[in-house]
Amino acid sequence: MYSKYENIRKIKLYIASSIDGYIASLDGSLDWLSNHPITPELNYGYDKFFESVNTVIMGGKTYRDILNMDVIYPYESKMSYIITRNQINSSKENIHFITDNIIGTISNLKKEQRKDIWLVGGGELISILLNNDLIDEMIITYIPTLLGEGVPLFPKSKKESNWKLINSQSYDNGVLTIEYQRIV
Amino acid sequence: MYSKYENIRKIKLYIASSIDGYIASLDGSLDWLSNHPITPELNYGYDKFFESVNTVIMGGKTYRDILNMDVIYPYESKMSYIITRNQINSSKENIHFITDNIIGTISNLKKEQRKDIWLVGGGELISILLNNDLIDEMIITYIPTLLGEGVPLFPKSKKESNWKLINSQSYDNGVLTIEYQRIV
Repeated sequence: MYSKYENIRKIKLYIASSIDGYIASLDGSLDWLSNHPITPELNYGYDKFFESVNTVIMGGKTYRDILNMDVIYPYESKMSYIITRNQINSSKENIHFITDNIIGTISNLKKEQRKDIWLVGGGELISILLNNDLIDEMIITYIPTLLGEGVPLFPKSKKESNWKLINSQSYDNGVLTIEYQRIV
Repeated sequence: MYSKYENIRKIKLYIASSIDGYIASLDGSLDWLSNHPITPELNYGYDKFFESVNTVIMGGKTYRDILNMDVIYPYESKMSYIITRNQINSSKENIHFITDNIIGTISNLKKEQRKDIWLVGGGELISILLNNDLIDEMIITYIPTLLGEGVPLFPKSKKESNWKLINSQSYDNGVLTIEYQRIV
């Protein structure tokens, strides 16, 4: 849905995490998620969320990890912005690469009047945006697993922030979805 | 309540955590919790939980941190077991120090027929007990704050484990309590 009543579209972190805060195995793999797949019957609010955004942003490593998976790029219907130190070749017209002025470019994206923006990951980009108060909502789907080690959802940071709990939803299979809104 | 229907009393981790999984500031301080104190009106299930245990176990650092706080030792009515590398002097008859055979001693505690055992912390002891499948339940009270850095609730480990979501309870002030049970 459009953010009709606000001037600024939101950046929403929407991501799956283990109980202990890992978003991927050490090698970037998401195999541990396969016990709790998103299906038409059990989508943990994914379809509704997917409709609410028309743009995705993600780090270069996350983008390369997706390309290395044996799947069709899942965000073809959205405008993609890949934040990366190294330009990656792509002939896709709706995929843009941002190599410098990250904060300025993303801040400008927020000023456009459109549907919201999905922050796909990974941890490094999440950290950069958190440190610049650029994440408006976090919708975290907690899988009932302790991974022990992996790629952290929230890398260490000097920045503290407070959040408002908007919603939490538990599922019979132990998955728990939690929504937080940044307190401005 | 007594674990009437099972032979083994449970070890329950009951602890407050930031959204990003820290249980204390880097210096061990719990000052960041002061915005969400436990009061008679809002105790996040603390009173009921406190009644369900008659024993607490904690690491030596957690014990010393508590002694350094300007409070009366909060577990005087329980039997305390402090797991520590260095013997600490105490004249209290219901405080015991475990300096070796940690796993054996704690495993034996579980076999006694009594109320449950509260694992108070900290991260290092949590990790040791997780690695030995000695934690039966985790009741985590999530404070709606990103701390950025601190003492981790779940230190890195090689051990993966799966959990059953038993309950989740949200409060108007944004606190969220989540209960997990180990899948055996």
